[in-house]
Amino acid sequence: MTQVSITPLLMAGGAGTRLWPVSRDSMPKQFIQLLDDGLSTFQATLLRVKGAPFGRPIVVTNQEFRFVVAEQMQALDIAGDIVLEPERRDSAAAVAVGALLAQRQVPDAVVVALAADHVVKDVEAFRADCAAAGALAATGLIMTLGIVPTEPSSAYGYVEPGEPLSGKGASRLSRFVEKPDQATARGYLERGFLWNSGNFVFSAETMIDELERWAPEILAGAGAAVDMATSDLDFIRLDPSAFGTIPKTSIDYAVMEKTGQAGVLAASFDWSDIGAWDSLHAVAVKDEAGNVLQGPILAIDTTDSLLRSDDMLLTAIGVKDLVAIATRDAILIAPKSEAGRVKALVEQLKAQGRPEASEHLRMYRPWGWYQRIDLGARFQVKRINVKPGGKLSLQKHFHRSEHWIVVRGTAEVTLDDTVSHVHENESIYLPIGCKHRLANPGKIDLELIEVQVGSYTGEDDIVRLEDVYART
Amino acid sequence: MTQVSITPLLMAGGAGTRLWPVSRDSMPKQFIQLLDDGLSTFQATLLRVKGAPFGRPIVVTNQEFRFVVAEQMQALDIAGDIVLEPERRDSAAAVAVGALLAQRQVPDAVVVALAADHVVKDVEAFRADCAAAGALAATGLIMTLGIVPTEPSSAYGYVEPGEPLSGKGASRLSRFVEKPDQATARGYLERGFLWNSGNFVFSAETMIDELERWAPEILAGAGAAVDMATSDLDFIRLDPSAFGTIPKTSIDYAVMEKTGQAGVLAASFDWSDIGAWDSLHAVAVKDEAGNVLQGPILAIDTTDSLLRSDDMLLTAIGVKDLVAIATRDAILIAPKSEAGRVKALVEQLKAQGRPEASEHLRMYRPWGWYQRIDLGARFQVKRINVKPGGKLSLQKHFHRSEHWIVVRGTAEVTLDDTVSHVHENESIYLPIGCKHRLANPGKIDLELIEVQVGSYTGEDDIVRLEDVYART
Repeated sequence: MTQVSITPLLMAGGAGTRLWPVSRDSMPKQFIQLLDDGLSTFQATLLRVKGAPFGRPIVVTNQEFRFVVAEQMQALDIAGDIVLEPERRDSAAAVAVGALLAQRQVPDAVVVALAADHVVKDVEAFRADCAAAGALAATGLIMTLGIVPTEPSSAYGYVEPGEPLSGKGASRLSRFVEKPDQATARGYLERGFLWNSGNFVFSAETMIDELERWAPEILAGAGAAVDMATSDLDFIRLDPSAFGTIPKTSIDYAVMEKTGQAGVLAASFDWSDIGAWDSLHAVAVKDEAGNVLQGPILAIDTTDSLLRSDDMLLTAIGVKDLVAIATRDAILIAPKSEAGRVKALVEQLKAQGRPEASEHLRMYRPWGWYQRIDLGARFQVKRINVKPGGKLSLQKHFHRSEHWIVVRGTAEVTLDDTVSHVHENESIYLPIGCKHRLANPGKIDLELIEVQVGSYTGEDDIVRLEDVYART
Repeated sequence: MTQVSITPLLMAGGAGTRLWPVSRDSMPKQFIQLLDDGLSTFQATLLRVKGAPFGRPIVVTNQEFRFVVAEQMQALDIAGDIVLEPERRDSAAAVAVGALLAQRQVPDAVVVALAADHVVKDVEAFRADCAAAGALAATGLIMTLGIVPTEPSSAYGYVEPGEPLSGKGASRLSRFVEKPDQATARGYLERGFLWNSGNFVFSAETMIDELERWAPEILAGAGAAVDMATSDLDFIRLDPSAFGTIPKTSIDYAVMEKTGQAGVLAASFDWSDIGAWDSLHAVAVKDEAGNVLQGPILAIDTTDSLLRSDDMLLTAIGVKDLVAIATRDAILIAPKSEAGRVKALVEQLKAQGRPEASEHLRMYRPWGWYQRIDLGARFQVKRINVKPGGKLSLQKHFHRSEHWIVVRGTAEVTLDDTVSHVHENESIYLPIGCKHRLANPGKIDLELIEVQVGSYTGEDDIVRLEDVYART
């Protein structure tokens, strides 16, 4: 088996709500610390493919998540290409763009395309499987990483292995099948089918050829989006109009179900896609009562449950097989067996126009983050955290004045034509209609309390006059 | 039956934790709106005994609750005597003090002693029963209001009716029995026992005589505490040293189980002591799925449950017979059948030193309230609400500066030797160590945001130099 260099392609643009209220459109689950390892699944995925035989990673994400992606990569000291999708597309677009970019960097590149929200604990087995699949991919196969089912789940698509290939667990792939009902799934298990993990290993050239053959409009759109891409700070920004022509479909449907080049490797590593809160409970380390307790929790006579709280004290007495998730502004309670219905619940919340359905209380921005801490009829209070070097846009508001009180660090405040420094325990008043800008010229985080007063304190009362992050 | 004038004696000093996290030591359940009637049970109790044949009420409460008692009475436009216990005692002390005070006002007073945390919906039946019991009390009996059991509960003490008296449901009382186990309770039900509601009707004279006979040290302590009581604003403040001599015991134990004068009236009204969250569910109006939903709730396929949230969005899928209670800083989840164990949970929290066990986030003060809205390493942010005419103490801090931003109304701010007015959308800075005072000279509530900055922001960093509420 030849050792090949493999380009990791992380697909990190999804915005799942199945782990609501922790995962929301504004900050989806791949960027959130779900387990006790101190990492998001995106970060854990990056670490799994760090170092030889893996090369510099390509991360494809939605442009909305660019700063969190950059920050989480920086925290791990991992450099890579961050490719920004101007709108949501399914996996076919990401794979096509990734294959094209990988080939530009390494003409005979082998790519491992990975979802950024899966959990794998046995990293060595994972890397060995990727290398084995990579060697087969270098021969022109598109290898699916198949998972040996632990139960007849109806939550996954299945693949049927065909003619064996050289190497343990490798075979040609006979066919893909959609998510079955449980009875059908039981039959699949008896016949040795595997779960389709949605992770693939292929040579860029093979994938591009197969896209050309089976989905030329996807390849054409992706090619144009890459050709006309612009570099913006550390990002590769795909051309929006070209990208917009790409059909919204999965790589499974666009290529894998049609190609004659498909293979499958039965993974030797553990795997979970944390598709719902009960999956997190299954994957996480449990105490002797079978509980996963994350955050400030007191649980009495509680068994086989997942209790998680970001901040508030969460207590339980005598519960069993329950999921209870508390964030600063929303709480979910459900039996583990009903955890799969969270997505439907979020749809209802969206239909009701509840902001908690999509938005987190803490909003991440390129310069740091802000969080509402109080809201009244004619006022709003926010805590604002600006990273060293961070700079908000030059802006003005029509309906509110603002009072800024610095509680840590030093602020550089532009107020109309003057620039001044406001230090810890000092404040400044920004009258309604003034042009103003906040920046952190210091070496530590700047924290301030903003008190807005006015007849309307909505986020959309903002005129951005200038912005270093190209948001005007 | 002679119509007698009845003095209501409300016992409102308890600090139960069985409805935690809503009820806490700092603001117990009798002062909290538990049902959808817009009233606390204390207020509902006051309204039940408003107007003839009931006279001016006497409210016995702990001194810590004096301002909430005064405010809740004022909100109903009900005047009464507010008697302050300097420390916690059981019901014997309250009944003795109440009987003595009632007799001073009306020598042949008949008193109805009521717990302030019970729920009665049929007010007319309640009033008629009190009048009937009052007529018997005027003849020298101490009447217990007995409740016809709806189940063989082991949560209540029972009373055995004896020789019938004139009037429907009235009899002499043979004996009191302690909380039984369920099997014993079943026997009690068969023999016609009633629940002891802890509410009594008696003439002041009879009660004083029986205290003299069976518990002279209680009467002596109560008499001295009343004799040496001081008037403080609208309150009757019992003498602390005299009050401290009164044994901590219930009126049941001190008098009722011993006296030969006991009678019982089988109540014709509905009754609940809301002893736990499942009782609140039982008493409250339910939707067609059997749920009680209080606050911003979305419940899917949820049945026979109590979901309550003060503020945050609370969601549930597929739960049954559950209690979930969310406040701003603490959450409780338990099956209804386990709701009786909340008190034990709170004991554990207290042992762990969790402030949420005893204190609410919103702290009521004579001048209004404050609530922490954010807390950092070297800062704290509070929302402060001052009633019209309210005035905080003249104070200073050793470890923090304060920034006040008025978001509604007008503040009168004393800063060392100057007094100024700070209006909506204005701010003022109070440097560390300065003498300062906040007051609301206006006609509407004053709302302000206080940002504290310093190395220590605990409540106990305060020197009170002067206080209109006698707290220096």
